[in-house]
Amino acid sequence: MSLNTFGHLFRVTTWGESHGPALGATVDGVPPGINVDEAMLQNWLDKRKPGQNKYTTQRREPDAVKILSGVFEGQTTGTSVQLMIENTDQRSKDYGDIAEKFRPGHADITYFQKYGVRDYRGGGRSSARETAARVAAGGIARAALDTLMPGVEITGYMTQIGPHKIDRNRFDWDEISENPFWTPDAVSAEVWAGYLDELRKSGNSVGAVVEVVARGVPAGLGAPIYGKLDTDLAAAMMSINAVKGVEIGEGMAAAELTGEDNADEIFLGNDGQPVYSSNHAGGVLGGISTGQDVVVRFAVKPTSSILRPRQTITKTGQATEIITKGRHDPCVGIRAVPVGEAMMACVLLDHLLLHRGQVGDAGGTIG
Amino acid sequence: MSLNTFGHLFRVTTWGESHGPALGATVDGVPPGINVDEAMLQNWLDKRKPGQNKYTTQRREPDAVKILSGVFEGQTTGTSVQLMIENTDQRSKDYGDIAEKFRPGHADITYFQKYGVRDYRGGGRSSARETAARVAAGGIARAALDTLMPGVEITGYMTQIGPHKIDRNRFDWDEISENPFWTPDAVSAEVWAGYLDELRKSGNSVGAVVEVVARGVPAGLGAPIYGKLDTDLAAAMMSINAVKGVEIGEGMAAAELTGEDNADEIFLGNDGQPVYSSNHAGGVLGGISTGQDVVVRFAVKPTSSILRPRQTITKTGQATEIITKGRHDPCVGIRAVPVGEAMMACVLLDHLLLHRGQVGDAGGTIG
Amino acid sequence: MSLNTFGHLFRVTTWGESHGPALGATVDGVPPGINVDEAMLQNWLDKRKPGQNKYTTQRREPDAVKILSGVFEGQTTGTSVQLMIENTDQRSKDYGDIAEKFRPGHADITYFQKYGVRDYRGGGRSSARETAARVAAGGIARAALDTLMPGVEITGYMTQIGPHKIDRNRFDWDEISENPFWTPDAVSAEVWAGYLDELRKSGNSVGAVVEVVARGVPAGLGAPIYGKLDTDLAAAMMSINAVKGVEIGEGMAAAELTGEDNADEIFLGNDGQPVYSSNHAGGVLGGISTGQDVVVRFAVKPTSSILRPRQTITKTGQATEIITKGRHDPCVGIRAVPVGEAMMACVLLDHLLLHRGQVGDAGGTIG
Amino acid sequence: MSLNTFGHLFRVTTWGESHGPALGATVDGVPPGINVDEAMLQNWLDKRKPGQNKYTTQRREPDAVKILSGVFEGQTTGTSVQLMIENTDQRSKDYGDIAEKFRPGHADITYFQKYGVRDYRGGGRSSARETAARVAAGGIARAALDTLMPGVEITGYMTQIGPHKIDRNRFDWDEISENPFWTPDAVSAEVWAGYLDELRKSGNSVGAVVEVVARGVPAGLGAPIYGKLDTDLAAAMMSINAVKGVEIGEGMAAAELTGEDNADEIFLGNDGQPVYSSNHAGGVLGGISTGQDVVVRFAVKPTSSILRPRQTITKTGQATEIITKGRHDPCVGIRAVPVGEAMMACVLLDHLLLHRGQVGDAGGTIG
Repeated sequence: MSLNTFGHLFRVTTWGESHGPALGATVDGVPPGINVDEAMLQNWLDKRKPGQNKYTTQRREPDAVKILSGVFEGQTTGTSVQLMIENTDQRSKDYGDIAEKFRPGHADITYFQKYGVRDYRGGGRSSARETAARVAAGGIARAALDTLMPGVEITGYMTQIGPHKIDRNRFDWDEISENPFWTPDAVSAEVWAGYLDELRKSGNSVGAVVEVVARGVPAGLGAPIYGKLDTDLAAAMMSINAVKGVEIGEGMAAAELTGEDNADEIFLGNDGQPVYSSNHAGGVLGGISTGQDVVVRFAVKPTSSILRPRQTITKTGQATEIITKGRHDPCVGIRAVPVGEAMMACVLLDHLLLHRGQVGDAGGTIG
Repeated sequence: MSLNTFGHLFRVTTWGESHGPALGATVDGVPPGINVDEAMLQNWLDKRKPGQNKYTTQRREPDAVKILSGVFEGQTTGTSVQLMIENTDQRSKDYGDIAEKFRPGHADITYFQKYGVRDYRGGGRSSARETAARVAAGGIARAALDTLMPGVEITGYMTQIGPHKIDRNRFDWDEISENPFWTPDAVSAEVWAGYLDELRKSGNSVGAVVEVVARGVPAGLGAPIYGKLDTDLAAAMMSINAVKGVEIGEGMAAAELTGEDNADEIFLGNDGQPVYSSNHAGGVLGGISTGQDVVVRFAVKPTSSILRPRQTITKTGQATEIITKGRHDPCVGIRAVPVGEAMMACVLLDHLLLHRGQVGDAGGTIG
Repeated sequence: MSLNTFGHLFRVTTWGESHGPALGATVDGVPPGINVDEAMLQNWLDKRKPGQNKYTTQRREPDAVKILSGVFEGQTTGTSVQLMIENTDQRSKDYGDIAEKFRPGHADITYFQKYGVRDYRGGGRSSARETAARVAAGGIARAALDTLMPGVEITGYMTQIGPHKIDRNRFDWDEISENPFWTPDAVSAEVWAGYLDELRKSGNSVGAVVEVVARGVPAGLGAPIYGKLDTDLAAAMMSINAVKGVEIGEGMAAAELTGEDNADEIFLGNDGQPVYSSNHAGGVLGGISTGQDVVVRFAVKPTSSILRPRQTITKTGQATEIITKGRHDPCVGIRAVPVGEAMMACVLLDHLLLHRGQVGDAGGTIG
Repeated sequence: MSLNTFGHLFRVTTWGESHGPALGATVDGVPPGINVDEAMLQNWLDKRKPGQNKYTTQRREPDAVKILSGVFEGQTTGTSVQLMIENTDQRSKDYGDIAEKFRPGHADITYFQKYGVRDYRGGGRSSARETAARVAAGGIARAALDTLMPGVEITGYMTQIGPHKIDRNRFDWDEISENPFWTPDAVSAEVWAGYLDELRKSGNSVGAVVEVVARGVPAGLGAPIYGKLDTDLAAAMMSINAVKGVEIGEGMAAAELTGEDNADEIFLGNDGQPVYSSNHAGGVLGGISTGQDVVVRFAVKPTSSILRPRQTITKTGQATEIITKGRHDPCVGIRAVPVGEAMMACVLLDHLLLHRGQVGDAGGTIG
């Protein structure tokens, strides 16, 4: 089965190929009475939109989203919401060369081996254009969270490009929207700009790390054992194109800690509720939110479509070399930031609905 | 909803608490005609069993698995298989102190906040004992793979304990079964033994990294976009107790690579099928297996139940200190090895069934 | 896939064969804090238990249910609940003759054709014994409804056995528990007693119609389009062994009505809320409950295991005749009454949880 | 949750309201390599299209379907298929009167009570226009069945309108396409024509019974216990607008039969495989197909939008009378015929894929 649906109660099914007539998302389980309009969704899409600066692909697509169902007189009705984005810039001639050759590191070879179909048009279904549909659906999730879980704030940013990591001591929330990399470290933004300029000129690409933080999430969200909040976040992020690793809180570095160091000690806050000395857990214990910031991080591999020659084979079994022309991102990680935010929003809303459904007001209060 | 089911077609629902009468797994979607018996499953469970050496908890439980349904005359019938493991060693007095206090880094506080219920008996549902049910279910998956995808070999091993990583140059498959850490590096096994002795004596614990490799997986498994092979593996591993990070292939290190370096170049093998120059992808491209080794890695945080005093609060909202007595693993990562293998087996079988269902013989062949 | 799970949020997975060691249900999504104990569940099971009067099979099984997980100190914890019923009376020698022959009207031939396995022990998985697990799970659902939707009352009863239908003018709720057929019509109870005596002596069996009514269900439950309340009820009832037809409200007779006659006219009740002149709809419009009684009806075919000789074939392809000895129900419909009630309870709780999750307090009020 | 998805592996999610910009279906799990084009789907839609004769609504909509994804160069690619039908004739002024009043027998009151939203435009999501999306999706299913299960033939027809039933002795397959009622009984077609003329003139409507038969279905399809073939058919048909009852084979009449009469005796066919003396079972035993015709029947209640005055209330809680003007079907059952066929096609394909996935070639052969 080609599983194109994500979520338990808030369910997003995406559809569409990079060079077909349109792509979009069918969003089911949307709570009724939520204020939603196209402009609101468009804001989020514009953040992801290509061609905004020289560090992302120069394909220019308006990526204009239309709401085809589920919203009436500016409010969600509780029925399935259809979001459609028409593909307007489909310069498919750019992709002529790759109709026969497989790109190393790209999914065209595995899609062919799996389905027996060679949809060579810019990656077809495996193209990162699919993430536009996620961002649109994420806009619905954010609108619902604004109403149902007011105060939650979801922010994504980059912490690493290639070998260059941010300095956490320079972390500044306000800086994030001020540079093309959505990074909280102004110095890194400058370093990365120079680094990517070089890289782009050389026809190469590079990987990156994106971190997404949700502040204001109450304790109690998450459905153990197999729908844990962190399990669903891991799946959400790993499902994004080119992602190869996902971390919660300390992530892989948790391996290096002792139990004594890793323990987030618990104290009483002024309101009698727990506060923690640290957040090694990334806001999730046993798959359930603790009330601290929910912190997830993921690594995006470098774009596989590069101008540097690589050895490969053709569909008919001939050895050859490939150079992928076209307008590609030197660092797709940049555009993954709003995608990561969208996935966080979808997962949080989904778990809010699950919790309301199963537990309602039956949760526990300390004290 | 308390989502206790994992998988799409091969579906495992686990149940049971660490100190209830029993725990187990209801396994649905098992192909018929597979040879299965209790002894076969017991072999896998024995690998995970506590009390085998001084590096794991000294709780002694036979962890004997019973098959209650779905198998007739030594073969699966195609109906749901019920696997039960009775809890025989429930020394609950050991846990008396934690009935009121929350352990830092442990799920008892979030379970209480979510459900309003304080099941203080050794972690209740959040206990790592739940993973015994996974291992039993994984035994069913392995038996089915042996019949339906012969040649696939799933091997887990440790690559890091605390600050000590293995040396990949000393990697030896045959060494894995020769030491209590299932590590392919004999030198590391010795280093770790000394390190853990110290740690145990000091009442502390430490994290670890486990790697699981599946060799012999054919190209074409995986259900994009939201049921990708790597997405499901990430969810499977992140759902294991104490896991904080999951990597496929290069994992987080993919961020540091250029596109040129990261490209696994494609060549023609002697059989006319693709061979790759490297496996940065970890055997998965676009969520679909490439035919190379499928490589997944996960970090396990240190056990939160330690003998070192930590600050915490009680259920009634009093500040206090906690020392967790009882028989705990200094490094739970060790016992996570067979669990990771079991999850890999479940995911692979699930995707094999999905592929048979949707694609059948319609996949593509190169050349 | 052998889909042994029913429900969306409140999910019941049953397992076990009629002559294996045990059968049961894994119940997931149970709200926490619900009072549940074995005695409570046993009450419902006893209602279904065989061997209580001469109109049901004389197999004597205590059908004692054990709770293995998910309940602590008399309350549900929010984790998966395992219910187990051990099979104690497995006189499998009675079934010797049918090890080779297929019973006309019985599932043994289709199970063999599907799975390639011949589990001849009393029907194996297709035995009506599976419904004991449903009744136990339904007991959990009822307990949760008592807390979360107090006032709802679920009552099943028989309205027809063979050619003999009840007279609705004699309908008496209090009569239902007074006769072995759970029928609200005392006269029919007598007629049926005589009719079934004759039938049993002749070694034959007969079909029946069961009606299940839920009173006190609020308006607004149901998840259109494919999780409509009546859709889920239809699936729930059709999944019961031997059921061949399901009706909501008017059911098949709706075909004969005009729009004018079928319209349940709407008036204002004393509380300003809608009251209806009639209930042709059976309490469901557009898949959503109206606040009226939810009325579902289903037909149970006659037991296929009879003492009358029928033509059949063997597993090896030989023509032969079969007489099914053993202790079978002359009218399995009788024992389907508590099963239908259990399924109603499961569906209602599931939809209550779904509604809480998606809609919460956002529903509409007239006036 | 607003569950707008149907199916296990072949999954159809419909979206759209009767008077929004468009409606459609997102179809997931479509096998790759199936020949599909818009003209093929249009053929099925035209069969359902309104305004074709005086017995159906006079709304004229081209109902032109567009394929937006999942098909490349005339073949399915294995990715999600998006089908869109734009709404062109939205004369919403006709519905002005019902913006405030609730129609007896219509879902507008329950949608309002559930979601708190009054989408008065021609039924919104609850409109039978949603079934156009089902028919389009069913076209995909039929195309896949043609390739994967050649020889299967799905035919729907009417067997009853109001009090007038067909005479089975006049059953003629060839007659079905020759009259506006898709009935196999030419005499009934004439009787019904006169009856409906009268009814339409009087502003009334009437119910109907539709039967759908699938010939050529192999033995072995169906996933017991909760995904039985007949369970899924019951859910599929009951989910269609206005359906109040579903029967398999004998259906409700099974209650009147003895076990002796109901037994479909088994004989050996010339090919050594089973043949049956009758088909009381409707081609399904224990939830699994027998190889006989699969026979399902459902009752459609009369259209609730009629010109006859009925008592009702308004959204603000005022008692009033309603007459529903507009262009409505005197007997919606007629247009339910192609919808029933589409649902049968979807269910059969879904179960074929499930069977391939779980069982593959492991099924049993007699002899």
